[in-house]
Amino acid sequence: MTQPVRVDVLSEDKAMVIFQPSGSRGEVPKGISVIEASRLLGVDIETLCGEEKVCGKCVVRIEEGQFEKYGIQSSLSHVSPWQEEEEKFITPEYREKGCRLGCVARVEGDILVFVPEASRAGKQIVSKAARDIFIEHNPAIKLYYVEVDPPSFEDPTGDFERVCRGIERDYGLNNLTIDIFALRQLPGALRDGKWTVTVSVWNGREVIRVRPGKQEHNYGLAIDVGTTTVAAYFCDLTTMDVVDTVSMMNPQCKYGEDVMSRITYHMNNPDGLQRMSDDIIEGINELVDKAIGNTFPPKKKKKKGAEGPDKYVEDPGEGKTYLRLAREDIEDVTIGFNTAMHHIFLALDPKHVGRAPFPPVIHHSLDIKARDLGIKINPSSYMFVLPIEAGFVGADNVGVLIAEEPYKQEENQLIIDIGTNGELVLGNRHKLISSSCATGPALEGAQIACGMRAAPGAIERIEIDPETREVDYKVIGRDAWRKFSKPEEMKARGICGSGILDLLAELYRAGVVDKSGAFNKKALEGHARFRINPATNQPEFVLAWCEDSSIDKDIVVTQKDIRQIQLAKGALYAGCKLMVKRMGLDRVDKVKIAGAFGTHVDRTKALTMGLFPDCEIEMIESVGNAAGDGCRAALLNIEKRKEANWCSRNVEYIELTIEESFQKEFVEALQLPHMTDKFPHLKGIVPDDILNQ
Amino acid sequence: MTQPVRVDVLSEDKAMVIFQPSGSRGEVPKGISVIEASRLLGVDIETLCGEEKVCGKCVVRIEEGQFEKYGIQSSLSHVSPWQEEEEKFITPEYREKGCRLGCVARVEGDILVFVPEASRAGKQIVSKAARDIFIEHNPAIKLYYVEVDPPSFEDPTGDFERVCRGIERDYGLNNLTIDIFALRQLPGALRDGKWTVTVSVWNGREVIRVRPGKQEHNYGLAIDVGTTTVAAYFCDLTTMDVVDTVSMMNPQCKYGEDVMSRITYHMNNPDGLQRMSDDIIEGINELVDKAIGNTFPPKKKKKKGAEGPDKYVEDPGEGKTYLRLAREDIEDVTIGFNTAMHHIFLALDPKHVGRAPFPPVIHHSLDIKARDLGIKINPSSYMFVLPIEAGFVGADNVGVLIAEEPYKQEENQLIIDIGTNGELVLGNRHKLISSSCATGPALEGAQIACGMRAAPGAIERIEIDPETREVDYKVIGRDAWRKFSKPEEMKARGICGSGILDLLAELYRAGVVDKSGAFNKKALEGHARFRINPATNQPEFVLAWCEDSSIDKDIVVTQKDIRQIQLAKGALYAGCKLMVKRMGLDRVDKVKIAGAFGTHVDRTKALTMGLFPDCEIEMIESVGNAAGDGCRAALLNIEKRKEANWCSRNVEYIELTIEESFQKEFVEALQLPHMTDKFPHLKGIVPDDILNQ
Repeated sequence: MTQPVRVDVLSEDKAMVIFQPSGSRGEVPKGISVIEASRLLGVDIETLCGEEKVCGKCVVRIEEGQFEKYGIQSSLSHVSPWQEEEEKFITPEYREKGCRLGCVARVEGDILVFVPEASRAGKQIVSKAARDIFIEHNPAIKLYYVEVDPPSFEDPTGDFERVCRGIERDYGLNNLTIDIFALRQLPGALRDGKWTVTVSVWNGREVIRVRPGKQEHNYGLAIDVGTTTVAAYFCDLTTMDVVDTVSMMNPQCKYGEDVMSRITYHMNNPDGLQRMSDDIIEGINELVDKAIGNTFPPKKKKKKGAEGPDKYVEDPGEGKTYLRLAREDIEDVTIGFNTAMHHIFLALDPKHVGRAPFPPVIHHSLDIKARDLGIKINPSSYMFVLPIEAGFVGADNVGVLIAEEPYKQEENQLIIDIGTNGELVLGNRHKLISSSCATGPALEGAQIACGMRAAPGAIERIEIDPETREVDYKVIGRDAWRKFSKPEEMKARGICGSGILDLLAELYRAGVVDKSGAFNKKALEGHARFRINPATNQPEFVLAWCEDSSIDKDIVVTQKDIRQIQLAKGALYAGCKLMVKRMGLDRVDKVKIAGAFGTHVDRTKALTMGLFPDCEIEMIESVGNAAGDGCRAALLNIEKRKEANWCSRNVEYIELTIEESFQKEFVEALQLPHMTDKFPHLKGIVPDDILNQ
Repeated sequence: MTQPVRVDVLSEDKAMVIFQPSGSRGEVPKGISVIEASRLLGVDIETLCGEEKVCGKCVVRIEEGQFEKYGIQSSLSHVSPWQEEEEKFITPEYREKGCRLGCVARVEGDILVFVPEASRAGKQIVSKAARDIFIEHNPAIKLYYVEVDPPSFEDPTGDFERVCRGIERDYGLNNLTIDIFALRQLPGALRDGKWTVTVSVWNGREVIRVRPGKQEHNYGLAIDVGTTTVAAYFCDLTTMDVVDTVSMMNPQCKYGEDVMSRITYHMNNPDGLQRMSDDIIEGINELVDKAIGNTFPPKKKKKKGAEGPDKYVEDPGEGKTYLRLAREDIEDVTIGFNTAMHHIFLALDPKHVGRAPFPPVIHHSLDIKARDLGIKINPSSYMFVLPIEAGFVGADNVGVLIAEEPYKQEENQLIIDIGTNGELVLGNRHKLISSSCATGPALEGAQIACGMRAAPGAIERIEIDPETREVDYKVIGRDAWRKFSKPEEMKARGICGSGILDLLAELYRAGVVDKSGAFNKKALEGHARFRINPATNQPEFVLAWCEDSSIDKDIVVTQKDIRQIQLAKGALYAGCKLMVKRMGLDRVDKVKIAGAFGTHVDRTKALTMGLFPDCEIEMIESVGNAAGDGCRAALLNIEKRKEANWCSRNVEYIELTIEESFQKEFVEALQLPHMTDKFPHLKGIVPDDILNQ
């Protein structure tokens, strides 16, 4: 961090860039944007729009006159000239201070860049615990222990055929093949194990690992790659135990918050696809290391003298035994994602998935050697990539399906997976249809003025007093609500998905906005929190004052934000309604909400706001990380993989936007609250005067 | 070559080594042998024994007092001290000059090394033309052209399923999978081809390539890796034409001339296996580049406006069109080798193949993605590695079998593949047995005093006048015999395999040696060409005088050499005889000799010398590179691959050395000439006085 900068060795085509407060520094080619420089130097800056110059999230400050202490000359002239697009996001006052959009300003000489708190991509802690779901034990990788005779002049049969003969004799399994990497282990393992080995067989046909002696455990990972977060269940394939749950932020977030931004990034950068693919693969490798890096108490103590693959080591400090595993102990991986992320991970051109009629490159599941993707687990292992339903209904949705199994029920279930796109499945054992609706990322906190991911400092709960219209709120990372805290304790940075639904309900309940979503200007006149933003000429409502925030400005909701949220819930509602209609139903028997949004959402408020159609409130169920559970089911039971492929081709995909009545339904659904007239028990929640507007 | 040596940057652990006359130079770690240094710097020095200090082929001269002109100090003290083993090969006079064994002397400081002509590993030109054999057209890779409808909202099916639907509709082929690298080509190819593509399908089940539009050609290589040479047939998989034949020296020769030396090299060097494997893989990549680098006139001119995968380019000089191919146009490879080379290529531990009872790691053929081995052809392609019969009867012999098909004949055939080991197969459609006999490398010119590979300067034909016992000979690379040349025109360097059989027959015919192989000392007394070598106290006979040679010494045959040749032919004869006996036969119907030795061998002399048992001379047939033909058959007809696996497990391997009568037969077979009493028509060849000794 504090090494002297060797200005003398800089070539003419390169410039030194130092990012503060992280201190990251290095030479970069001249001419690249500050955002590109930040990537090269490992600095995370928010870029919700994929560098389309439209989100304004990537404001940075180019420091002037402070460079001398680092031994280099610098000035504002070391970046490319100011551009019109920046005016929308940076006031003249901030421009004066050296603020620029990171995606616009290009490095033209040595610069020191300060990244304000508001522009830093949050390093979020994500934790997705495994739910208890029933899975039959039938993993793709099974262990076979065999004892064979050593070769002799009478029987000089080769090692592999010798072992195969033993496996056929003891287990009736024949016609095995063997991966070349596993074959390399065979002669040593056979002799180390004194002519006994344990072989790991994939899918009843390919040997992918050979270990000496008798081995009783092997491991696998079920990975659920979300647009924002990546979570993996680390499972013992023999006992089915979830040994650990590990997760991380999706490292691709730096290329854009939503999948369309990333597709755009690919289309604008020749190496964009490769870079994004490399990043998620590197991320998954980190996840693998995290999983195996965690030591944990073994289920049972290792028997004295037992030969075994597992490396129990004595912890001299505590006298306990711990199980330590290596990358090669991970013998199987299942992985699911939405279609765009699936394509980017596999380096398949995602362009067509982003264009009507949105055909994916492939639907069917793939068994790919992990080594072919650069995933560092056992070198002979396969990854099972869950199949895709459609361009906007991905493998993650297939995961949800095989976890929830609506195709085995008589009752009609509506399963909603809310992310940047809402993915919808409706039906029962007789028929299943799926669709997606372009909710936009508003429900995830993106593309709204103060939206952010569910990271520390994000407002996740809001209450607005209907009398005073004063706001109380709480942020992630602090248990106490605002009214029990000092302003400087809040450190609010923005508002996240679960806060947004609260916000809409509260704005409406408190009469800040009316049924159409417009600010109730008459009622708000003279209110301290309501104002017209002089820069945008847009009305906005202050949720948290500057003194409460760590980003040095008021956190507000604008009229445009409210429209975004309305569009999201309208799209979701209209989508659900059209699907119900298409199935010839009046209402559904059960609504299941998958994903993090489902876990945190207030069911009553969701119904009030009209997120989905008519349903008894008690029939609404949050099913947590069902996509991840589906990946886990596929990891532990090979039949679930067949089921997944069956789902991907037998769930009928319906493109809602081309339905005749979509537009009408959608516009109707923009209204708030949508359903209260049909739900008398909700009446108390919304004041009558508002409800009867 | 002539850049100044930067002595100042040498670290203390490194030394500068310069090899002359090649001029190769570089830093090497101190403490390694001169041979190891030569490998690091890409200089080929003969090491027939695998650095076991027993062949004496790697004599080099450490130059003293000539180093100043290169800017560095050097002296004999810059190499490790003289060792006892060197005395056997280096006379005091040569020791005085600075000669050392390259495998003994270690680099301890900067040195200049002169590599004498005799120690340089010859760069041999190998050419193996393809024979006309009948092969049914049924390649593993087949092309399917399909036209599909573009996706629509009514049918947004993904690209791969869309193409599969077309293939099933047009060709009835279903359940296809696709390699991830091919999948990446699919969306682009489909759109470039305006919804028409040609897919390459492997084994009726996996798509390994997708090209836009209609394509009618694809290519493959059939590679035969010999211990010494590597040859490949470059074939059009559609027309079955052999487009080209390319060959090269096996780059592993530098680790030892025979497979046992290479196994020893592996056992003595932790990274030896990897290095040898890397070298042959690099060699095969060079062969691939050679194959595609050759441009050649196309079979037919490209039609105007025809869309196609083949790149015909106009040659402005001649106005002809040529077909130019890329690595990715090679879609299939078959490869065969002996068991040790097979193991080394695949980086499978070859240790056990070299130890009784010689079990291989695997018998069965392998389908391995070329990319997993680092072979740079189409990234999705497989290599088909031919199966192994036994530790000493490898995939090359399987190649011979599927080319010659003795299992389809009623007549009993004896197929002999003479290399460092003789590989023998005997039988007919009812039963086949195989064996190997340790002929040693004498018949290939190795491990005898002046033996060498079939390279320019090698004596390949000899005649000895029975009266004067004067020698006439011819060398590879010069058409004129010695007696029609000036001495300095011969540039003889040694004697190669085909010369050796001639030599033995001529020595015997001219009475230089007797029936037991001993020099006929009485008759030779006072003959200028006969002498006792003062260094070894061994009798020797001069074939070419120093003035004829380019290695500055007489080329001789020693008593020990004659013993080596006798051992080789004795082992081969005894092996054949025991096999005939084991099959309950008196004599065989046909003898087929495979390999280069078979092509050049004089059938009459071979029978005279007793290389193999009773057979009518006209029933002896040379079948050329049958191993390579077998690889080609497997490339062009997938059924041949099944046949190969059938052979590898249904030819009964017999270990001859453990047969009771082996020793007796072997000793008897050492005598020369063995069979002439049974072959009256041979009587004229051997003078009666000798024959009746």
